[in-house]
Amino acid sequence: MEVRISHSRMKSEFSRILTRYGFTPEKADQCAGIFMINSLEGVYSHGVNRFQRFVSNIMDGYVKPDAEPSLVRGTGSFEQWTGNLGPGPLNASFATGRAMELAHKNGIGLVALADTNHWMRGGTYGWQAARNGYVFIGWTNTEANMPAWGAKDPRLGNNPLVFAVPYDNKGIVLDFAMSQFSYGKMEVYKIEGRQLPYPGGFNSDGELTTDPGGILETRRTLPIGFWKGAGLALILDIIATALSGGLSTHEITGLKVEYRLSQVFIAIEAGWLSDLPVIDESVQRIIRDYKDSEPADENAYIRYPGENILKTRQENLKNGIPVNETVWNKILLL
Amino acid sequence: MEVRISHSRMKSEFSRILTRYGFTPEKADQCAGIFMINSLEGVYSHGVNRFQRFVSNIMDGYVKPDAEPSLVRGTGSFEQWTGNLGPGPLNASFATGRAMELAHKNGIGLVALADTNHWMRGGTYGWQAARNGYVFIGWTNTEANMPAWGAKDPRLGNNPLVFAVPYDNKGIVLDFAMSQFSYGKMEVYKIEGRQLPYPGGFNSDGELTTDPGGILETRRTLPIGFWKGAGLALILDIIATALSGGLSTHEITGLKVEYRLSQVFIAIEAGWLSDLPVIDESVQRIIRDYKDSEPADENAYIRYPGENILKTRQENLKNGIPVNETVWNKILLL
Repeated sequence: MEVRISHSRMKSEFSRILTRYGFTPEKADQCAGIFMINSLEGVYSHGVNRFQRFVSNIMDGYVKPDAEPSLVRGTGSFEQWTGNLGPGPLNASFATGRAMELAHKNGIGLVALADTNHWMRGGTYGWQAARNGYVFIGWTNTEANMPAWGAKDPRLGNNPLVFAVPYDNKGIVLDFAMSQFSYGKMEVYKIEGRQLPYPGGFNSDGELTTDPGGILETRRTLPIGFWKGAGLALILDIIATALSGGLSTHEITGLKVEYRLSQVFIAIEAGWLSDLPVIDESVQRIIRDYKDSEPADENAYIRYPGENILKTRQENLKNGIPVNETVWNKILLL
Repeated sequence: MEVRISHSRMKSEFSRILTRYGFTPEKADQCAGIFMINSLEGVYSHGVNRFQRFVSNIMDGYVKPDAEPSLVRGTGSFEQWTGNLGPGPLNASFATGRAMELAHKNGIGLVALADTNHWMRGGTYGWQAARNGYVFIGWTNTEANMPAWGAKDPRLGNNPLVFAVPYDNKGIVLDFAMSQFSYGKMEVYKIEGRQLPYPGGFNSDGELTTDPGGILETRRTLPIGFWKGAGLALILDIIATALSGGLSTHEITGLKVEYRLSQVFIAIEAGWLSDLPVIDESVQRIIRDYKDSEPADENAYIRYPGENILKTRQENLKNGIPVNETVWNKILLL
């Protein structure tokens, strides 16, 4: 059963719970806001559906509610921070803001963040930057969940990567993992007895398959673009680890749970360009041409990255955020 | 028939020809060096096999041998340059060097370059940065050669993207286009009567196929990771256009030939981190774990991005660079 919860109700429940688990009222409000917005914008897997696990990570001591990021060292517009195991969304939002400050001063800024926790939805930080007039490039490493190209055992993280650009007072935000489909999505397809729309991994015969069950068995999930996404996953982990001085995917994989992640946040000041209103006009022309595409069939809709989210947001603002009733009832008991 | 040309012979022939078409001796030497190294390292499509076309672009006035990049404006570590239609490889190498200078001063630097020409092989600039101790992120836009996801007609460029990191006094360099296979590669497979190793596009029935002929017919080449690579191609074009103030993919597509490209070069100073020898040690640990992967079959070899290139380079240094005899003879007549 699905229930619809208003965004204000969801946020106040999250906030109440976080306060109970050691967050200050201000931090509870901010963190609850991020979990709520992720849900409002349709990324339930990293919003309401992940909230219980977030709380249990707090209870187990992996996420420290009162910890704040601190500067390790910096040179000019490149700063190395440690997250001190504080809440991932708050650390990531702080790091994005700090990268924006550095960019405001110097045109471009980079924050490399070690020892942080799961940032939930990477797009959150892309939107934060884009709404404030900054171009954004950022990524996180993860535990190993994908084999190298040509290999059987998981050694690579799916290391989500975000690109964002200001547009139309909002943004165009691309937030994507290096695996073609998440395990969560493949499990849903399997439960529903459906095939994936495109190949998502290898079965036990070493063949590409759309059968989610076969992939869940081998754990040989497919990198986007085959060898290309595998290479990208590797180099993103290397750069995040090297710049932050934090742990890499293989080191995180050796821990009890997925924590102590390494992340990179790059902000680029775009505001100074807008005296010639170069950005909005040129981006509008690009989007207009893109939208003029000839659809492959009558069901095709040509979307730009993040466009869906704006629509979902409107729907969920109006009708409430859809949540599985059991999930919501368990949250109410926290 | 294939002939083997020594790297020094190849470079001196290229240099002789470029001098003849208006390059100063210094610029001819530098540009010839880039075309030669691209070939030496196995990227023949953007080295020796592309040289004739480069010369004909000079003859047609699209590439201006004596033009040099000039600063349009800058704020701190972010500078906007125009390439003034100079030779793409020289402009890109200059922009990489300038981004490194900015990064040396400020930790990170960005050069956005408008009105440049094809940079040939993106990896060239990744290696340039990595060998000098800089992390690099850079990309170029191109003419439209790939449909949006769900569309039939090409509106997106394949917009090659490069990530590089210093390693082992050299680098790990990932250089990849947003299309799964290039048209050049698909044409080779078709001529040889072979199927692609993995699906590379859609046939006229709208089905994913490994048949290169079917894809060459529809021109519906596959973006890496399906919708993900299509989204990435779009946002890379948007960011390059917005930051450089130059032309976007759809505007370039309207020109007579592919020129006046927009590019982004980001360099990150990694040297200041090496007092704790954090980079080399942590990267070595990551590569060691990666190499410990269990191969999927006895033919699988687990490579990191750029590893192949080092091997090809050694072989070609020893045996000469392989070139199709007809191609080489035509070059000698230039």
